[in-house]
Order: sequence, then structure tokens, then C-alpha cells
Amino acid sequence: MEKKVILDGNAVAASVKESLKERINLLAQEGITPCLATILVGDDPSSETYVRMKGNACEKLGIISKRIHLPKETTTEELLETITELNEDEKVHGILLQHPVPEQIDERKAFETIAIEKDVDGVTSLGYGQTAFGFGVYPSCTPAAILEIMDFYNIDASGKHAVVVGRSPILGKPVSALLLNRNATVTTCHSYTSNLEQFVKQADIVVAAVGKPNFIQGEWIKEGAVVLDAGYNKGNIGDADYESCAEKASAITPVPGGVGPVTISMLLKHTVISAESYMSKKSATL
Amino acid sequence: MEKKVILDGNAVAASVKESLKERINLLAQEGITPCLATILVGDDPSSETYVRMKGNACEKLGIISKRIHLPKETTTEELLETITELNEDEKVHGILLQHPVPEQIDERKAFETIAIEKDVDGVTSLGYGQTAFGFGVYPSCTPAAILEIMDFYNIDASGKHAVVVGRSPILGKPVSALLLNRNATVTTCHSYTSNLEQFVKQADIVVAAVGKPNFIQGEWIKEGAVVLDAGYNKGNIGDADYESCAEKASAITPVPGGVGPVTISMLLKHTVISAESYMSKKSATL
Repeated sequence: MEKKVILDGNAVAASVKESLKERINLLAQEGITPCLATILVGDDPSSETYVRMKGNACEKLGIISKRIHLPKETTTEELLETITELNEDEKVHGILLQHPVPEQIDERKAFETIAIEKDVDGVTSLGYGQTAFGFGVYPSCTPAAILEIMDFYNIDASGKHAVVVGRSPILGKPVSALLLNRNATVTTCHSYTSNLEQFVKQADIVVAAVGKPNFIQGEWIKEGAVVLDAGYNKGNIGDADYESCAEKASAITPVPGGVGPVTISMLLKHTVISAESYMSKKSATL
Repeated sequence: MEKKVILDGNAVAASVKESLKERINLLAQEGITPCLATILVGDDPSSETYVRMKGNACEKLGIISKRIHLPKETTTEELLETITELNEDEKVHGILLQHPVPEQIDERKAFETIAIEKDVDGVTSLGYGQTAFGFGVYPSCTPAAILEIMDFYNIDASGKHAVVVGRSPILGKPVSALLLNRNATVTTCHSYTSNLEQFVKQADIVVAAVGKPNFIQGEWIKEGAVVLDAGYNKGNIGDADYESCAEKASAITPVPGGVGPVTISMLLKHTVISAESYMSKKSATL
């Protein structure tokens, strides 16, 4: 039996960040500093933490973190106005609206207002469609992280059966689309799936994206399958029961230290790509 | 054993058209006649036939068919100009660019130029993304036809396992997305799928969208499955081997007379919806 591989997200993230440093230096030579604008609405403590983590990760790498904090009473119109200003601000290369927003806000409308060139978090339906059609620039960050991990560890999806458990617009749907474009046969499962276990048992690649702690059981995993756990539940617990799944898997992402750190590095990478596009366009018009 | 149902696309199409007649009459009372612009580039005989069929179907129902025929030497820029003019023409409610275009043209760029409000054929990545996210107005017409047939015959997808064979941007991908949104567990198969037969054998609903005559074999079909054949190959032959599949299926679309006629009626329906939206917007600004 081959040795089991623990897919080390921190190593992948470190490698991504290392390559970004050089690109950020090149941009600096042209007088451009990549800038990510984050919008936090309200004062949900975990959202505050997430936004702070993302902002700090930017600054650590030399990306400007423009942090906008709107009061919890913000209306949809006010939020759209903020997004529109950021769309028009040449110094901002990426926009991240922290989910969830307070319930009086039309979150989908807000997401859709983000300009495609700045949708580095991959939340717009246009970005999703482009990704699914194979020419998207900024896929949603967690799906992008999953592919980055696979690439780092030379895990080929082609001809494999990938079973994705979950169908959210930022996770299950785009990761299904990306794996399909990598020539996997993809089954997307969700809360209406009858006999989920039977589907997972057939998978060469399992993506857990369901948002339930320790939901995917080791006995569902086919011997030698690859388990990619995109879950992140309270107390640092993934969607896959790590101990039992690790016994069967040939490769598995731990939680924490798996998909999570790579997700943030994808956000940074997308912001740098956007700054590079801005630079190319600028020099083309000179 | 229950009686087998032959899913009669002509009956579904007739029912759709009947309901559209009333809506077209209501629009006429407001002085609006729905108009579909079709663009044919070059002189491929089957493309000419398809465009003519669509145009004639429009006229038969009282929808204006604006037929634009461009020479085969047309450049991408010239085609984009034509599309932009149609986007801006208030009297045009839908735009259909007949696929395929001559090879010097960037077809994807041309499709992407069609304004989302007029993308009644469902070819843009934005339209696809909106459909996948559950708020698309004009899904691609063949996938829409498949859902229309299911609705007409009360075939519920929820909790069922749907296996889609094919992953094209106008067929396999959007029909997978629509079935997923109907709460089916969806497996998308394609040319890289190993052991296709094993996937099809598990399906409660099989969508054949592969473009190969008589490709799906009856012995692959689970007893009682629903077979929806979106194939249309030379000589009126579907992608599923009708005789052998019909022996196992509880319901099946024939070719011809199955998905095909409903597809055209979806194009008409979308054009009418677009004219209705135009009317609503017009009265809102009065």
C-alpha cells in the first residue's frame, strides 16, 4: 500500500505566497501596490475575525488592505453605493464583501454589483458562469484552493469520479464546475440526495462542502480515495470525520491546516492578478 | 408494471404555443409585437435550415422574425457591431446567433456580446451563471425544453439521480444545473468518463446530450428510468437507441417529436417574456 499523504495546506499557502512576493515586487517597480477592499457590514464577531484575518494576510505580503466597516443598519442602496465607489476607484483591485450581511440587505444584489474585474472573491454569477465555461479568471476562493492543493500534490482529476457534497454558489457549485473542467466525472450531492453514503462510496475524489461537523464518515470512503475537506465548523472541525476518513484515504486535507489557509492565499493571488491586469491595461493605453 | 409513457414533444410544444398566443395578444393591446432577430453567418445548409425553421415558427405565432444574413467572410468585429446594433434596437426583444459561425470568428466573444436582457437563446456565461444560481430568466433552450417536458408530464426530479451525458455550454452544463436546482443528485458524464455504462445504469433520469447517434444503449438503462434524448443526429436519429431504451424506460422522448419541437417553443416563449419585460419597464418609466 502506498504511503498516505496528509495534504498540508500551510505548505501550499506558503508556496503561493512566496511566488506572489516576486510579482508584488514587479508591480512595485511600476508604481502599483495591489489593494484589496474588504466590506464588513454589522458587527458579527466571526465575520469581524474573518475580515481581520484577510486584511492582515494582505498587509503581511505588501497588499494594501482597505477596510470598510458599515453599521448594521446599512441599507441595500447604501451598500450598493459603497461597492460602486470601489468599482470606480482605480487604486482598488479587488473587492470582498464579507458574507453574511444583515438580513435587511439584498446580499445577492450586492454581490452582483461587484465589477467582474474586481470580483477576486468569485461571488458574482458572471464570474461563476465564466469559470464553468472555462475562461473565468477568479473562481470562488475555496474551490480555487482545492484545485491549488491538487496541483501542488499532483493529484489528477481526469477520468476520476469526483463526488461533491454540497451545492452552495461559492463552494459546491463552483468546485463541481472546476472538477468537471479538469475532466472528472462529477456528481453533486446535497440535502435532497437519497443514500448519500452510496454516492460517496463510489468516489475517487470526495469534496466535503456541506457545513456539518464530522459529517462524512470513514466507512463511506472508498479505499485509496482523495478526501478534500472544505468544511470549517466551530472548534476547528471539518465536514469529514478526519480520523476514520484518514484510515481509508490515500490523501486527505486536515482541519485546520488544509483548505483554509490556501483559501486566503487564493484571495491574495487573485488580488495580485487583478493588479497585474490593471497594469497591462494602463500600459496599453499609454 | 405501469404503462410506458412516450413523452410527446409536439403536444408539449402545442400547449406552450397556445399559452403564448394569449400573451402575444395582450402585448398587441399595448402596441408591442415581440421580435426575434436571428443572425446567420455564412451559408452552411443545415444552419440555414435551422434559422429558417426558427424564423417561420416565430411568424406563425405573430412574433416578428428579423433575419440577418451575413457573408461567410464576416469578421469578428463586424459581427460584434451587428450584435451591438441589435442590443440597442428597442424593437428587438431577442437575439439568436446561429451556431456554428465560420472559423475566423471568435464565437464566444460574439455570444458574450449579446445583452443579457435579449439572450433568449441562453448562450452567455452570465445567463448560464444566473441559471445555475437559480435566478436566470432565459436558460439555454434545449435544457429549458427538457424541464418543460418534465413539468408537462409531472416528472419530479427531486431526490432522483440524474445522469447527464454531455457537458457542452448550451446543453450538458445547463441541464445539469437546472436538474440540480430541481433537487436532483446530478452526475455529469463526458468523453473522459470511464465506465459510462455503470453511471447510466444507476440513473433514475438519463439525459442524452452527447451528439452521437444511438449511443446510449437500452441495456444501460435501469428498469423504470426516464430517458430524455436531446440528441439530433443526421437522419432524425437521437443519442439514445430508442427501441432498446424504450423497453426499459418508464418514460422516453422519441426523436423526432421529442425534445426538438419543444426547444423551438422555448425560444418563442423567451422572446415573449423579453417583450413583456420591455413593456413593464416602459410603463414603469412613463
